[in-house]
Amino acid sequence: MDYHKVTEQELRRLREIIPEDRILTGEEIGEDYSHDELGGITNAPEVLIRVLSTEEISEIMKYANCQHIPVVVRGSGTGLVGASVALHGGIMLETTGMNRILELDTENLTVTVEPGVLLMELSQFAEENDFLYPPDPGEKSATIGGNISTNAGGMRAVKYGVTRDYVRGLTVVLPTGEVIKLGGKVVKNSSGYSLKDLMIGSEGTLGIITEAVLKLVALPKVSVSLLIPFADMDAALEAVPEIIKSKAVPTAIEFMERGTILFAEEYLGKKFPDSKSDAYILLTFDGNSLEQVERDYDTVAKLCIDRGALDVYIVDTDERKQSVWSARGAFLEAIKASTTAMDECDVVVPRNRVADFIKFTHQLAQEIGMRIPSFGHAGDGNLHVYLCRDEMEEKEWQKKLDTVFDAMYRKAEEYHGLVSGEHGIGFAKRRYLSRQYGEAQMRIMRGIKLAFDPNGILNPGKVV
Amino acid sequence: MDYHKVTEQELRRLREIIPEDRILTGEEIGEDYSHDELGGITNAPEVLIRVLSTEEISEIMKYANCQHIPVVVRGSGTGLVGASVALHGGIMLETTGMNRILELDTENLTVTVEPGVLLMELSQFAEENDFLYPPDPGEKSATIGGNISTNAGGMRAVKYGVTRDYVRGLTVVLPTGEVIKLGGKVVKNSSGYSLKDLMIGSEGTLGIITEAVLKLVALPKVSVSLLIPFADMDAALEAVPEIIKSKAVPTAIEFMERGTILFAEEYLGKKFPDSKSDAYILLTFDGNSLEQVERDYDTVAKLCIDRGALDVYIVDTDERKQSVWSARGAFLEAIKASTTAMDECDVVVPRNRVADFIKFTHQLAQEIGMRIPSFGHAGDGNLHVYLCRDEMEEKEWQKKLDTVFDAMYRKAEEYHGLVSGEHGIGFAKRRYLSRQYGEAQMRIMRGIKLAFDPNGILNPGKVV
Repeated sequence: MDYHKVTEQELRRLREIIPEDRILTGEEIGEDYSHDELGGITNAPEVLIRVLSTEEISEIMKYANCQHIPVVVRGSGTGLVGASVALHGGIMLETTGMNRILELDTENLTVTVEPGVLLMELSQFAEENDFLYPPDPGEKSATIGGNISTNAGGMRAVKYGVTRDYVRGLTVVLPTGEVIKLGGKVVKNSSGYSLKDLMIGSEGTLGIITEAVLKLVALPKVSVSLLIPFADMDAALEAVPEIIKSKAVPTAIEFMERGTILFAEEYLGKKFPDSKSDAYILLTFDGNSLEQVERDYDTVAKLCIDRGALDVYIVDTDERKQSVWSARGAFLEAIKASTTAMDECDVVVPRNRVADFIKFTHQLAQEIGMRIPSFGHAGDGNLHVYLCRDEMEEKEWQKKLDTVFDAMYRKAEEYHGLVSGEHGIGFAKRRYLSRQYGEAQMRIMRGIKLAFDPNGILNPGKVV
Repeated sequence: MDYHKVTEQELRRLREIIPEDRILTGEEIGEDYSHDELGGITNAPEVLIRVLSTEEISEIMKYANCQHIPVVVRGSGTGLVGASVALHGGIMLETTGMNRILELDTENLTVTVEPGVLLMELSQFAEENDFLYPPDPGEKSATIGGNISTNAGGMRAVKYGVTRDYVRGLTVVLPTGEVIKLGGKVVKNSSGYSLKDLMIGSEGTLGIITEAVLKLVALPKVSVSLLIPFADMDAALEAVPEIIKSKAVPTAIEFMERGTILFAEEYLGKKFPDSKSDAYILLTFDGNSLEQVERDYDTVAKLCIDRGALDVYIVDTDERKQSVWSARGAFLEAIKASTTAMDECDVVVPRNRVADFIKFTHQLAQEIGMRIPSFGHAGDGNLHVYLCRDEMEEKEWQKKLDTVFDAMYRKAEEYHGLVSGEHGIGFAKRRYLSRQYGEAQMRIMRGIKLAFDPNGILNPGKVV
């Protein structure tokens, strides 16, 4: 695709839409805007615009669409697959200034937000009002617009589902500049093809989310976590399908290995309650009465002890919760700090294949001579597996990366898993997506892209 | 669009794919296959094929796509908007023979079914295995394929959500005959545009569902209903947002008026527990302990009494539950039996606008001189409003139908509601959909249709 460059003439037009102090070019932009959190792909936009409203975005898109200027949207830039990188230069729209919580509707149990609200701001606002916004991805400084764009999942998906399940309505600026409203505060909807569900998880390639109506639930009155050590990862992970089978419905079931905990302790400068064992599962249970929550976690604790758990730590004080969950939240950063470079595999497999998949990554690590730590959401089958460069030469690293990714995605496919559980496809995982989906699905996705974005100007080179 | 007719030559080819005894033509087909449950639009297919497998459907579609023969899929034919009517003749595929429950996976909490399994068969199977399939539309003899195609909602949406929330994976035959797999047993998915969510609610226009992986939940151990009479509908419906606000989370909140109950009593030949009052709300609460369920319903019962409820009947015996819920299930048929012809409006509005909307339909009924009974899902804002012909002449009926539909959809729009909560758009509601959505959304939907069905052969003339 041949795109138009942003020259002085284009800047003059953009300054008619947006005040000059919110338009940055060249050196002013800053290196951070050339990459995302994982940094596998790097390119700078020609112009960075700090947008503040639906109307501004609509005007910019009308102009960019006419002129064939590529546009990419960026929230906090915490993505891991390069989805927010301006591959073709052009215009980058930064939405972090659109960070107002617009309305709490206690009769419809919804909150209406702008896309730049951070996940931590939203969850705090909800809790202050005695509500819970259930999606709970590890990266709390991500924007809610970014969370919707990747259909972020997080820890509580076992009980509560993912971001998709909490998006009731969206206001979207199309690549043509037209503004559409999808869904609303309504609970049911069978009114035509679900464009709302297409937007969710489309990684900024189909339209620009400028407002979201999100569903809230009542804040559970009680929440208790269990930290359960096992002698090895196999034993830990094999307990998980049994927990699911017991119908106890934990809020979260995370798994972690000793090595990752040690990195997190070092990274945070704080002790984890226990790090003597090789493998752990961390569960949360929530509900409205202590009896009910106790009944649930008792069942699970007994089940784990029967299956060889070494102990069961009850994490019920605020201090202990803080220490355990802040460590869990720091795993990605801690592993990143432990190596020279890394890449990530975010596969999702059926929950009863997690143990097999992790065993496979351990074998792969040995065979190929690469450190491959992992942690993740055992309860929903979504694994975060990290490929660490450590002391490798660039050439060796690239070669091994290819081999390992290839082997892991093939194994996931064999288990009827999918390429991404929650981090998306972006730029980095495109070829694995098209390999798994095949020609028919990719052709339909390209057709959908064309229906939304006939000139191919919005986030080109991503997903499809 | 110019379609190819089914002549002896086409039948010869079809008989090479499907045994002759499952191919019906002309008079053999039967009048039922010309319309759906509401019967607003009528047309016979040229050929009816009783399909039994993905492979058969794939072969038929490859041929039909080449020859430009229109194809429509029919389950039980319980639709209300003409979505399964063969508007352009051609081939009708009947899926009721594909009615096997293929697998119960207790480790992943999924059940895999063919599309012709009836909702009542699925829910019975789930309960026999100590699981619940939560979606609970009134029409229990609908197929699960039809439920997915309309994103059916049902009574339990207040607590459990709609069909969309329980579809984990689909096998789909595309209009081109290609077979694709969407989703799977995985709980999270951020792997490209969600074609699975596009298929759900697409009313047989984008592809043919031949297998579905559905999510189950643990069967709640306790379930209690409350029947609460009020002096009038306003008082009954105004209590509902307060119930939602109380965060008690009922499984269902239905509303019904005295007239509808009397029709149902007559239709079923059975007494309802109480029919002295003008308006009722019927709630269910479920959970794993009686104490918890009692706590929830106590809160709600007190709240309703405070707001003028005349009484609170606790429906906890199997016999009483049966009498109340079988009446609720018979409302549509009972109203249908009470008049010469009827049409339906299935709007969904934010939950706190239900009272206003129903008040509006009462005014409209008076002004226009038409009987407009209603019932529906007060807890999720999805209303079923019936326009009854009674003794009207055809011309008067058609004119008043137009006026009333027009007024109701405009009012729903004013309240930020949508055309259909769960029955879909099909043929009957197309113009209201396009009026509400406007050109940009309709253009995108047509583009999506084209991406799936380049020759426009699958269920033409529906939705878009």
